[in-house]
Amino acid sequence: MLKIELLVLEALSREGKIPSQVLKRIKKKAKFNLENIQKIEQKTHHDIVAFVLEVCSYLGEDARYFHWGLTSNDLLDTSLGVQLKQSTFLILKDLDLLKKEVIKKATQYKHTLCVARTHGVHAEVYFLGLKFVVLLEELLRAESFIQKAYKEVSVGKISGAVGTYAYLNPQVENYVLKKLGLKPAGVTTQVISRTRISTLLFSFSLLAGILERFATEIRHLQRTEVGELFEPFYKGQKGSSSMPHKRNPIVCERICGMARLLRGYLITSLENISLWHERDISHSSTERVILPDATNLIDYMILKMTQIIKDLEVDTSRMLKNLSITRGMIFSQGLLLSLMEKGIPRPQAYDIVQEISFKCKRKGSFEEEAKKHPFVKRLFTAKELKDIFSPSKYLKNVDSIYQRFRI
Amino acid sequence: MLKIELLVLEALSREGKIPSQVLKRIKKKAKFNLENIQKIEQKTHHDIVAFVLEVCSYLGEDARYFHWGLTSNDLLDTSLGVQLKQSTFLILKDLDLLKKEVIKKATQYKHTLCVARTHGVHAEVYFLGLKFVVLLEELLRAESFIQKAYKEVSVGKISGAVGTYAYLNPQVENYVLKKLGLKPAGVTTQVISRTRISTLLFSFSLLAGILERFATEIRHLQRTEVGELFEPFYKGQKGSSSMPHKRNPIVCERICGMARLLRGYLITSLENISLWHERDISHSSTERVILPDATNLIDYMILKMTQIIKDLEVDTSRMLKNLSITRGMIFSQGLLLSLMEKGIPRPQAYDIVQEISFKCKRKGSFEEEAKKHPFVKRLFTAKELKDIFSPSKYLKNVDSIYQRFRI
Amino acid sequence: MLKIELLVLEALSREGKIPSQVLKRIKKKAKFNLENIQKIEQKTHHDIVAFVLEVCSYLGEDARYFHWGLTSNDLLDTSLGVQLKQSTFLILKDLDLLKKEVIKKATQYKHTLCVARTHGVHAEVYFLGLKFVVLLEELLRAESFIQKAYKEVSVGKISGAVGTYAYLNPQVENYVLKKLGLKPAGVTTQVISRTRISTLLFSFSLLAGILERFATEIRHLQRTEVGELFEPFYKGQKGSSSMPHKRNPIVCERICGMARLLRGYLITSLENISLWHERDISHSSTERVILPDATNLIDYMILKMTQIIKDLEVDTSRMLKNLSITRGMIFSQGLLLSLMEKGIPRPQAYDIVQEISFKCKRKGSFEEEAKKHPFVKRLFTAKELKDIFSPSKYLKNVDSIYQRFRI
Amino acid sequence: MLKIELLVLEALSREGKIPSQVLKRIKKKAKFNLENIQKIEQKTHHDIVAFVLEVCSYLGEDARYFHWGLTSNDLLDTSLGVQLKQSTFLILKDLDLLKKEVIKKATQYKHTLCVARTHGVHAEVYFLGLKFVVLLEELLRAESFIQKAYKEVSVGKISGAVGTYAYLNPQVENYVLKKLGLKPAGVTTQVISRTRISTLLFSFSLLAGILERFATEIRHLQRTEVGELFEPFYKGQKGSSSMPHKRNPIVCERICGMARLLRGYLITSLENISLWHERDISHSSTERVILPDATNLIDYMILKMTQIIKDLEVDTSRMLKNLSITRGMIFSQGLLLSLMEKGIPRPQAYDIVQEISFKCKRKGSFEEEAKKHPFVKRLFTAKELKDIFSPSKYLKNVDSIYQRFRI
Repeated sequence: MLKIELLVLEALSREGKIPSQVLKRIKKKAKFNLENIQKIEQKTHHDIVAFVLEVCSYLGEDARYFHWGLTSNDLLDTSLGVQLKQSTFLILKDLDLLKKEVIKKATQYKHTLCVARTHGVHAEVYFLGLKFVVLLEELLRAESFIQKAYKEVSVGKISGAVGTYAYLNPQVENYVLKKLGLKPAGVTTQVISRTRISTLLFSFSLLAGILERFATEIRHLQRTEVGELFEPFYKGQKGSSSMPHKRNPIVCERICGMARLLRGYLITSLENISLWHERDISHSSTERVILPDATNLIDYMILKMTQIIKDLEVDTSRMLKNLSITRGMIFSQGLLLSLMEKGIPRPQAYDIVQEISFKCKRKGSFEEEAKKHPFVKRLFTAKELKDIFSPSKYLKNVDSIYQRFRI
Repeated sequence: MLKIELLVLEALSREGKIPSQVLKRIKKKAKFNLENIQKIEQKTHHDIVAFVLEVCSYLGEDARYFHWGLTSNDLLDTSLGVQLKQSTFLILKDLDLLKKEVIKKATQYKHTLCVARTHGVHAEVYFLGLKFVVLLEELLRAESFIQKAYKEVSVGKISGAVGTYAYLNPQVENYVLKKLGLKPAGVTTQVISRTRISTLLFSFSLLAGILERFATEIRHLQRTEVGELFEPFYKGQKGSSSMPHKRNPIVCERICGMARLLRGYLITSLENISLWHERDISHSSTERVILPDATNLIDYMILKMTQIIKDLEVDTSRMLKNLSITRGMIFSQGLLLSLMEKGIPRPQAYDIVQEISFKCKRKGSFEEEAKKHPFVKRLFTAKELKDIFSPSKYLKNVDSIYQRFRI
Repeated sequence: MLKIELLVLEALSREGKIPSQVLKRIKKKAKFNLENIQKIEQKTHHDIVAFVLEVCSYLGEDARYFHWGLTSNDLLDTSLGVQLKQSTFLILKDLDLLKKEVIKKATQYKHTLCVARTHGVHAEVYFLGLKFVVLLEELLRAESFIQKAYKEVSVGKISGAVGTYAYLNPQVENYVLKKLGLKPAGVTTQVISRTRISTLLFSFSLLAGILERFATEIRHLQRTEVGELFEPFYKGQKGSSSMPHKRNPIVCERICGMARLLRGYLITSLENISLWHERDISHSSTERVILPDATNLIDYMILKMTQIIKDLEVDTSRMLKNLSITRGMIFSQGLLLSLMEKGIPRPQAYDIVQEISFKCKRKGSFEEEAKKHPFVKRLFTAKELKDIFSPSKYLKNVDSIYQRFRI
Repeated sequence: MLKIELLVLEALSREGKIPSQVLKRIKKKAKFNLENIQKIEQKTHHDIVAFVLEVCSYLGEDARYFHWGLTSNDLLDTSLGVQLKQSTFLILKDLDLLKKEVIKKATQYKHTLCVARTHGVHAEVYFLGLKFVVLLEELLRAESFIQKAYKEVSVGKISGAVGTYAYLNPQVENYVLKKLGLKPAGVTTQVISRTRISTLLFSFSLLAGILERFATEIRHLQRTEVGELFEPFYKGQKGSSSMPHKRNPIVCERICGMARLLRGYLITSLENISLWHERDISHSSTERVILPDATNLIDYMILKMTQIIKDLEVDTSRMLKNLSITRGMIFSQGLLLSLMEKGIPRPQAYDIVQEISFKCKRKGSFEEEAKKHPFVKRLFTAKELKDIFSPSKYLKNVDSIYQRFRI
């Protein structure tokens, strides 16, 4: 805030509104002591008035130039702009590292067979790498929204009590904001529109939802009966105070919890938009909580997920084993379509395949059971049958998906 | 947590499961150092394991009795129970003080005339005291829900890894919880049902909504054009860094903002209910944020509102002045009903009154305008007209409302 | 609404305010036509004014008694009270049926062995019945909150434009509400406090969260790799348009989705509390959406969950099989505590057990591996070892849990 | 959905996968009857299977080509893409009309003096037109986010059961989507990422928050004591069933309520992101509610606000009157800065002005009071004093604000 005050004075000096000697003296003498500010605030019940009085106390006669034509919120919203710009920049950088790890895994596991599950139930042949491409597609969307919000919040205002530049002109604002790396907000009331902050919190909630989804994926795949993926478990780590055999996806669970926090913050921020007239201050108490919390949480979530993906433990043999748990039933659609290609209408073909699959629901192989079926026997050659029950054909269009993401 | 561990040992000793000498020794030696715990946690990635290891390090051979048959969450949820019970108790006490101030003002302003506003538009004659009775009615509801939630959260569990008392029996739990002033949770998984915490956060959100409503009321009545109520403004207080004449309802605005935070926390807590199987830990990261924040915020809101109501500045003469701003139009329903009593059907009566009121929308007195109307002239005696335009008759049933609340 | 109008007239007639002949005539002639109302509303932009005008059009001279001293909201909030009372009554009745099915399953599966999972990872021996007892405990809480909210919303008001009984007295209100089975709201503005509706929507959200948790439980247990529980699958049902073998927990998933809707409605309703002064109408548009939706959704969720639990398919043999998937590791805490009983301090005992469990993480039996360990060998007799690795001992306190719920 | 099915067959025919005769025949015969579908669904418990069976029943032998290689969700998500694209397009068009009305009013009232209020308290001289420029700035932001979301949701998928194009190739998808005016989603699981829908609902919530803010502005300015702006009131409209004089901002209040609904829907949609593995169907029940509701609500809000702004009643003389209500105190910052320009340090200048303003808090003119103050008397010439208390100087930078928005 002091930096902003000095930049305003600098701008005024360049316009000839204050003598350059005054500027020089103020720059030299201006300072503050936090404890003093706190003491003054107890009287004024106004933090910025306290800050201004404290700085003025060191300036002697020159104090009359200080905080010239400004309103508290010129300081508050402009320094918030600087803070949000810096935080979001770091978040974007960390997100970039996460994307790199995701791409690495997408490449590494491109051809790693596993099963796709819909409704938690085995559906079809799949490839582990695709899970990372799906994640990447979502991360790119989050990134694009964070970048857009980054621009929205990298603004400031030096436009006075109700945004009319009544005592300062737009040139002063331009000068100050440029030095701070911000853009002018265009038009404001006493405050910058809180819609800008909502766009940031939405972009964080969106990313949080994405990380929550992938953390949930790992949690599912780490369950004892599945055992395909494991979040890293470090030497010396204890899974439980009572059950020494445990190895739990606790960081993934933590990420899921944090996504719930961010959704709550977004709602709060959307309620903050509707301030009264040229502003009230009901948003302020909430932003003091949600802005530090939200920026920290989302960055923490990114860092943790990056580490999890980097050191992810993958049990590819378990994946293959799980793939065959339904004894071939994941090829049911393949059989269905092959029957249709041979001329069986869809409804009958569907019934045939459902009948076969329910026959071997508990035991027996779908492939074997299928081969016994009179229609199947009659219609397909041995080679055709082999093709139907082979996972390799599912790979044929995976490349084209990867190419869309330049991986 | 140490207290809980020692109570468990005490219970085990009473059951003869551990020698009383051991209990005595452990009670003497058990302690911990927070920095050590932090160091151990960096290895174990598990806070309770770290706590247990640290305490054990002082116990020598007796360490083998420590944390006997417990799971981390026996400590965590039980100590959370103690914390929530204590915090909610304080909140209820503070709420009681608020209610007392509200009752005082309800009594003091029972007969203070003001205008009732619906849609922000003058509606009818009202009494300031009633606004406090309406507030009281809502506070009593919030109190009743906080009390119910208070019981819901004042519970603990000493039931082991998955709530089956596999290694400890319910008597141990009973002993420990009784000493802590808690009830057993009845049945639990590894954790106490998160529904209990949701009931608490709902009761806080409900109260927050009520305080938000009344803070909004004051904010409305403090606006320059209304000027009927003012939140306290202390000597030395500054309303604005740039506009020295300002006196703003900033504490009321702060209360409104905080209500938004509490709504967000409630949502987070409702999402926490659906943990997986016998528990996951996704709720934990969120509760570390929302529980301290929510309990502090709601208490702060109560304290601030108590102070505001206690030191509220009331401008009763402005109230009277505002009451006559519409030049008698607030008596329009009275006139309508009087016309109907004289035999005019509702639709015609309504049209007559609307016609009169639009006639004096900008200037002129509704009473005067009404008296000029041929129907009115013809139908009413002078005394009847006086009655129609007198505010005192509105008071007739206010007593009976007060009596319902024993004020 | 017409019923309410007539009851008001009845009350007024008993007080001698209107002749009994008039009451008789109005009762006979009062009626309305919805299309007419719609036409009138297009002019008046006010639904209740339109309703009153329409009814008046059939009453001739008696129209002057109609809607006497009432405000629109006397009709609106009172009829809402009737609707909410009736809907909530049905919901409570359906919830009771759900509870009965839950108790049945708790009894039926009391001794059915399965594994307890924390973090999705096998933790300890468990009993299927307990899952239903845990559900029951939560349902009882939801029921108790719905019952409390039921009382909160079963209220009405006949207190006039701003709740002051300016033209009607409390006796009229008492008479009308008693006939409708409602209580007076105590004190109101023009509207009954929206906090009452929030308590209802919270109680629904709480129940929804509970049903979501149990639906999630079934979804987890129905996944292909687990295969322990299955929501009912009816003859002729198709799991997928493309994969004939599929059997998906779609109703459980639907229930999970609906819980999200109810959380959203709760937030909306909490924002509705803070109406301006003696009311504005911003809550009305939202309640027209959320009240029918919320009451229908929660009832649908209850009905569906009742059916799911009633016809739930349970694969107890798969449960036993899954229990042994970790080859005995779920007994790790048992071994830990037994080692401690033999005098090994907790930290060492923990390390021993973790070492054994990691040794057989992929294959081999924890029991066998444990028996090879020099400490274990040395410390335990054969009988003691048998006890450590037997699930039956976990049952010992289950009875006492059931007794708390009188099952 | 039938259109999509036929386009897929068209694509397959172009690839030579099905004979052109077959395509021709199917195009001719394919149809469906909604009642039949409903009957079939009662058996299949699957809406798309029912649809496919119904259409197949008209196709004879050719049925075997129908729904070839597709999964239900290829139809569902792709037709959702078409619906969302169309709805959002309409919303954007209506938003454009709203913007035009806003610009008109910004121009019309550019120089219309009114008072700016912060915290509901008079702050400084303002211009009515600026309120519309501030609204425009926010609308442009909402528009930009809706446009971005429009692109996000205008996508489809024809990629089979788990998005791997196992039985169809990407060329088929390209052909079909191009004909429908959609883009391919890039990579999908069985469903298109729900993040896309969240971006749409956020953009709606953002706009809703903005409309809520402006509706709140009008509600404030329409209150009896302020009386500056009025939402349109149509001939024949009734403000109240009991108070014929009332004219209430009910449409603005309705808009405020609806914003609360949209916030709730956004939360629901963010919870929908985290589907399990390659999809579950928990989002579906919620989207059936929130997508029609949200698109309709936001459009309704835009239309209503457009009408309100178009026919807004403005009482400029009341604005001027209100401007002088504080008897000149809104010039306090001007006096403060002028004192500082004369060499008085800020703290002392602030105290002088606060002292003057408190002196005339209840009555008397700030200007008169100021002129009596010894410092003011001594320091300023008559002309300087006139300048300080003149509103015209506040206009000097308004033009440059307008130019930024090319108005």
